[in-house]
Amino acid sequence: MTAEAASATSRGQEGTRARLLATALRLFSEHGVEGTSLQMIADALGVTKAAVYYHFKTKDEITEAVAEPGLRELDQIVTEAAAMRRPGARIDHLLAGFVDVVVRYRSLVALVSRDPGVMRALTRSWSGRENFSVRMTEILTGPDGGVSRAVAVHAAIAGIALTGGAHDFAGIEDDKLRESLLEVGRKLLGRPRKVRSGAA
Amino acid sequence: MTAEAASATSRGQEGTRARLLATALRLFSEHGVEGTSLQMIADALGVTKAAVYYHFKTKDEITEAVAEPGLRELDQIVTEAAAMRRPGARIDHLLAGFVDVVVRYRSLVALVSRDPGVMRALTRSWSGRENFSVRMTEILTGPDGGVSRAVAVHAAIAGIALTGGAHDFAGIEDDKLRESLLEVGRKLLGRPRKVRSGAA
Repeated sequence: MTAEAASATSRGQEGTRARLLATALRLFSEHGVEGTSLQMIADALGVTKAAVYYHFKTKDEITEAVAEPGLRELDQIVTEAAAMRRPGARIDHLLAGFVDVVVRYRSLVALVSRDPGVMRALTRSWSGRENFSVRMTEILTGPDGGVSRAVAVHAAIAGIALTGGAHDFAGIEDDKLRESLLEVGRKLLGRPRKVRSGAA
Repeated sequence: MTAEAASATSRGQEGTRARLLATALRLFSEHGVEGTSLQMIADALGVTKAAVYYHFKTKDEITEAVAEPGLRELDQIVTEAAAMRRPGARIDHLLAGFVDVVVRYRSLVALVSRDPGVMRALTRSWSGRENFSVRMTEILTGPDGGVSRAVAVHAAIAGIALTGGAHDFAGIEDDKLRESLLEVGRKLLGRPRKVRSGAA
């Protein structure tokens, strides 16, 4: 095979992988992860089950791969927030980034809150990211370490994720949903509505 | 059988039923609803599977019965709130009642957020209660009907339920957890901290 042909094959495989993940997410949303088989994914793509196996050996691998881009973005946002000096700036950066990821990946977020299979796969991914959720909780908690603050932080994360992924709000535009979820986070975390530019 | 003996048998059966539900909730918490069989419940109680069948034919029936007292209390609170004149008083009454039920039934609430089997059983129970969750949402929304308010109400319900049932807070005393969750609801629903007595 020439280098050019190998590159074209590689691009073709990347394309199949991307289509596979998009199709898996759609089928997961419709039938749940438990209710979706590798065969169903192959059928929807019009490929053989062997072609699916070429990319992923198990459904859990697919679930992890579907969630990977969103988790990678969140991980990046947590790292950026952790590098900021002021606790308020850290909270504002993480809150805005978290809300944005929830809104852009809302069909996946909806799945997580409905399907324990997704949650299990994500917990494995997350645990590989140096206690991702612990770092996120620590930043949002800030210097105040009481029970009320811990409860408010937990409620903010859970409330934003479940509401962002809720079927009731599937028809709301991204910008409107983002603004409303930001407001939920600001109220619970005691952050002002206007963030000064260069707040870090 | 004498009337007295029949009554004693009935009391014994009621006692068995109550023990059965308490045992089921414990096993559900440990193994999930999917991971708990009628045989496991019978074994834990030291009775035959036939004795369990005498009370419940399916695991779903047990799940519904486990949740029944909490749902009945919530239903009562929603009805009371709906009868109040001022929107603020309706919200305060429902919020306080909801938080209280979540805290007192937190091992069950924890189960609902982890296990889709419980959610399915509860959805059936709830749908039998004249759109219970719709009534609850309407009262908490109050006269303001915008998207932001709907998002805040959804986040309040989800945040309070998931945080109240969270493993992280299993060791917090009821009073402290109740106060912190009330604060979450007040912030999101824009209610003052102090509620005047006789607010209705």
